[in-house]
Amino acid sequence: MRYREMTIEGRNAVLEAFRSGRTVDKLFVQDGCKDGPVMSITREARKQGTIISYVPRERLDAMSEAGKHQGVIAQAAAYEYAELEDILQIARDKGEAPFLFLLDSIEDPHNLGAIIRTANLAGAHGVVIPKHRAVGLTAVVAKTSAGALNYTPVAKVTNLAMTIEELKKGGMWFVCADMGGELMYRLNLTGPIGLVVGNEGSGVGRLVREKCDMAAAIPMRGDIDSLNASVAAGVLAYEIVRQRLAAFGARGI
Amino acid sequence: MRYREMTIEGRNAVLEAFRSGRTVDKLFVQDGCKDGPVMSITREARKQGTIISYVPRERLDAMSEAGKHQGVIAQAAAYEYAELEDILQIARDKGEAPFLFLLDSIEDPHNLGAIIRTANLAGAHGVVIPKHRAVGLTAVVAKTSAGALNYTPVAKVTNLAMTIEELKKGGMWFVCADMGGELMYRLNLTGPIGLVVGNEGSGVGRLVREKCDMAAAIPMRGDIDSLNASVAAGVLAYEIVRQRLAAFGARGI
Repeated sequence: MRYREMTIEGRNAVLEAFRSGRTVDKLFVQDGCKDGPVMSITREARKQGTIISYVPRERLDAMSEAGKHQGVIAQAAAYEYAELEDILQIARDKGEAPFLFLLDSIEDPHNLGAIIRTANLAGAHGVVIPKHRAVGLTAVVAKTSAGALNYTPVAKVTNLAMTIEELKKGGMWFVCADMGGELMYRLNLTGPIGLVVGNEGSGVGRLVREKCDMAAAIPMRGDIDSLNASVAAGVLAYEIVRQRLAAFGARGI
Repeated sequence: MRYREMTIEGRNAVLEAFRSGRTVDKLFVQDGCKDGPVMSITREARKQGTIISYVPRERLDAMSEAGKHQGVIAQAAAYEYAELEDILQIARDKGEAPFLFLLDSIEDPHNLGAIIRTANLAGAHGVVIPKHRAVGLTAVVAKTSAGALNYTPVAKVTNLAMTIEELKKGGMWFVCADMGGELMYRLNLTGPIGLVVGNEGSGVGRLVREKCDMAAAIPMRGDIDSLNASVAAGVLAYEIVRQRLAAFGARGI
């Protein structure tokens, strides 16, 4: 299991969790606790947007694993990130051309979860997200991924454009979602490929887009501007799946 | 504009809105108002899960359109549903084979909004939802549809299975999403078609599924069970788009 919910208890441990930048999903504070250290903790929690619940001491006692909660228990996401190299090794082990999702600053945790779910079912070997300007792997992401987070490795990189540059040297091709691109059916998406999906509002960033070999457009026959980010990722991913199946000579495709 | 936010003010009008089953997204109550009629209204609001905000009188005065709020203002979704016949007429007017989405009890408003957005961009002529056991067209649906609700007509029907039966007499074919079905690429999805998408948890209901002519499976190459409902709808809808483009002889598809 790559993803699990983790209980952190005791004032120092909880404060440290916030200060180290860990994603804390929920904070439980004992009713009436308002001393200095607890106020510092709730201040950090509000900064992060963590949900704070005030509960009776008995409830904390029941939740506590170590029996030393001192009036505060935090629930945090504990996710074991993969290394990019691990993801490529999985493709090699399966004897398949690498198929990666690269997400450029997805902000909505429901979209991130749905995209990791799609990556798993489309047979991608892993997902790459940037360290900054993106939602982390919170409990909402884990839930909307419907378990995929436990199977599909996610790697965090400092700079998506540089990572693409590196992987291109290894023979990978990159396609980004772009309304102004070539109709996706006309592109050859059968080789070792990275699918780059942009942010909900502004699409794929310019620096990242310039590193891509191809820009793929989904046909748009309606009145509005764009598909939901996770739907667009799904439609493009399954065009890759279709072309790969066809390349392997699957019947009737 | 088919969808707009509507302001209902005054005690009788607001209470009537709740009792008639209209979807009220938000209720504003004047601070300190706790008499019998207001309590009846807040009780109805809690039953419906409406968000209640207590605000100063000045705020209500500013929001009021008729100047007669009596301490309560409700914001409700006002959507003008289409008739099924209108949707078919749109297809005829465009000289296209009808392409409909039929949603069997979608429960998550984010999914419903994303699917209406997809229907718009995939060039579907309309969306059909059942009167019961489904989420209605709330403000969340309108927002996640990204404006599509203003363009793509939605019809409400009493019985989805009977509607399918009727439309089949008119020459339409129906395909439902079903993991146990034929791989979607191998089906002919080019004619007048209804795409039937099931509920998040349990898929397409048995009665509705039995009315369908085809069951389409999306290839699943991963470890988990199913795609997000709106992603699955998007992938299937775009397989229909691809086949229609290919049938029209679009280059390179």
